[in-house]
Amino acid sequence: MKIIVQKYGGTSVGSIEKIQRVADRIITNKAKGYKMVVIVSAMGDFTDELVTLAKQIDPYPSGREYDALLATGESISSSLLAMALTKKNHEAISLTGWQAGIYTEASHNKAKILDVKPARILSELQNDKIVIINGFQGINSDDDITTIGRGGSDTSAVAIAAALKADFCEIYTDVDGVYTTNPNLIKEARKHDIIDYDEMLELASLGAQVLHPRAVEGAKAFGVTLVVRNSYNFNEGTIVKEVSKMEIKNPVTGIAYDENTSKIAITGLPDKPGIAGKLFSELAEAKINVDMIVQSNQTNAKNDIAFTIPQDEFAKGLEITKAFAKTVGAKEVDSQEHVSKVSIVGVGMVSSPGVAAKMFSILGENNINIDLITTSEIKVSCIIDQKETNKAVQLLHSGFNLETY
Amino acid sequence: MKIIVQKYGGTSVGSIEKIQRVADRIITNKAKGYKMVVIVSAMGDFTDELVTLAKQIDPYPSGREYDALLATGESISSSLLAMALTKKNHEAISLTGWQAGIYTEASHNKAKILDVKPARILSELQNDKIVIINGFQGINSDDDITTIGRGGSDTSAVAIAAALKADFCEIYTDVDGVYTTNPNLIKEARKHDIIDYDEMLELASLGAQVLHPRAVEGAKAFGVTLVVRNSYNFNEGTIVKEVSKMEIKNPVTGIAYDENTSKIAITGLPDKPGIAGKLFSELAEAKINVDMIVQSNQTNAKNDIAFTIPQDEFAKGLEITKAFAKTVGAKEVDSQEHVSKVSIVGVGMVSSPGVAAKMFSILGENNINIDLITTSEIKVSCIIDQKETNKAVQLLHSGFNLETY
Repeated sequence: MKIIVQKYGGTSVGSIEKIQRVADRIITNKAKGYKMVVIVSAMGDFTDELVTLAKQIDPYPSGREYDALLATGESISSSLLAMALTKKNHEAISLTGWQAGIYTEASHNKAKILDVKPARILSELQNDKIVIINGFQGINSDDDITTIGRGGSDTSAVAIAAALKADFCEIYTDVDGVYTTNPNLIKEARKHDIIDYDEMLELASLGAQVLHPRAVEGAKAFGVTLVVRNSYNFNEGTIVKEVSKMEIKNPVTGIAYDENTSKIAITGLPDKPGIAGKLFSELAEAKINVDMIVQSNQTNAKNDIAFTIPQDEFAKGLEITKAFAKTVGAKEVDSQEHVSKVSIVGVGMVSSPGVAAKMFSILGENNINIDLITTSEIKVSCIIDQKETNKAVQLLHSGFNLETY
Repeated sequence: MKIIVQKYGGTSVGSIEKIQRVADRIITNKAKGYKMVVIVSAMGDFTDELVTLAKQIDPYPSGREYDALLATGESISSSLLAMALTKKNHEAISLTGWQAGIYTEASHNKAKILDVKPARILSELQNDKIVIINGFQGINSDDDITTIGRGGSDTSAVAIAAALKADFCEIYTDVDGVYTTNPNLIKEARKHDIIDYDEMLELASLGAQVLHPRAVEGAKAFGVTLVVRNSYNFNEGTIVKEVSKMEIKNPVTGIAYDENTSKIAITGLPDKPGIAGKLFSELAEAKINVDMIVQSNQTNAKNDIAFTIPQDEFAKGLEITKAFAKTVGAKEVDSQEHVSKVSIVGVGMVSSPGVAAKMFSILGENNINIDLITTSEIKVSCIIDQKETNKAVQLLHSGFNLETY
């Protein structure tokens, strides 16, 4: 069987009209001879409405009941889509997570998918039905409904595509694909035709909202070819797959940025083992998400540590750090609430020396001060003043020839 | 285990405040030493909103998908109620129809419950949890979600109470119990403390909206003691159970009426075998619900047939009957759009001759013309002019001493 798995997010199925449009698109694909499996999210902001109801009862509701509640959203959109297809004379069937055989960990709210047992999906496909599956949900070994956390429907789609050995997995969204940077900010931004899993993973983690990192990880692990496409047109989209080194034309393929960043630095920290671990444990207990961490050991047996956190956690993070600094006798705490993380990404970086240096030069020559730096094999991230974000992205985009390569 | 099963309808769980109130009531009952099992309907008019969405796609949607869609409503209310109980420090768990082991026929929309396998319910009760169960739904042998039709949650509650051998099954509604007649119409109407299954069944079928007839039938079949109670107060309610003949004080225990009735009569119908059957087959094909049918054979080998149908089906029913009359050469078609069916009900009637005669006399003496009559062992129904309804109910209510017996 030639199988396409498609995933449509909440905005794509946000109204009856949109559901009809999605149905037409599915039929178009089926007409090309594919068996169709479609994963849907809940309609528009229905999940948020359910969250509001739950929070009125309990700000921290039972995980099991929260999952049972939220899982209803996808049942509504999947059955409506199945009705729309049937009305258009294409037999369709909606399946909940458990009907589709999506087995997860026992835990709730962020359960990992452990296995997909696709017997029912396959038997419905063999009966020539279009199979619509509730995204974001599964069932655990207690026969309780689970949800799989943020980016859940993308992850469901990838897991199902892997289990079915689908030809590819199309993720529908409201942009044409993956761009070299945000096209709303930089008009020269170009859409990638093909991008490597690892690049996509870095871009996704760095705030390109197109695909959830978990889904990209899963696709890489199981060799699922992803296609990111716009549900409002028939443009080609971006293929995410393993790209061979031979195909790499440019060491840098994307500029990502994240403006929701604050920086906190603690200087003159006594150089005792475990002291940094203690600070970050305290921050973790307060559910503060630390992103970059940079530590520099100075000659006088004192350490400086700087780290970044999301802006809405800044006040709390600063309070904890100041109290900690006082307790351990650090010199001082310095902070900046509004900074940006700007990153260059590219799998070709590994084999192209000087890419990081070129980034620092481009920023330096234009009087943009770099505050912190972290690097991975395929990424360099710099913290800069938030006011310089647009200028920096623009300079890096043209400096690395992303308009033209 | 001492077990109470309670059922709360859509209005009782129509808002977060109402769900909190239901939670308090459940806790009060639990404090008396009962294990609590609670069946809920969908919140307020949520099911109607889902119906509206579906009908925008297809006026006659796939039965399977319609069930998958509608079943979400009860999942929302049950998980919210479980959260509310947990927040009030009483462990609770919500179960869908399939999790609760409610097995139905394969058919959709009006599937009959075939079996309740209460293993999961019992194990949760043994763990001292309050068990909240989605009403109105089950699962069939294909692992597809089914709904069980009108009055569904009452029927779910009775089936679960039977399977658990519960001490009793409380049906919560917005009135204090079952009355001798509609208390909004007749201020002397009295609430029954106890009523027999068969009487309740007739009253329910005749338009007393308190309990669905299917639920009463089920309760009778399995000997489940029902209690109809008001969810807005702590009054005693009405017990529905097998009432021994010794306990019967009055042959008539209730006056029911249905103002949504039209009458059509066809006279001078040739006395040929099967001719009446043909008329009612045609009406059935047009989905017209025929209620009473009265046929009188006259000496001249011609028949008169009169029947009643709901008023919103009057125009169509009349059209079909006129066309039929013309085809078979009947004499004429007579009709009256606005009539009422007034009924007296009582299990004591069987052993009290003259009850029907007394009804006719009361109406006759007060110049209320009786148009059609049908009788069962425990019921006599008369068709009268709709304008006379209130007067007739009043006269019968006092004539049979329902204020005082």
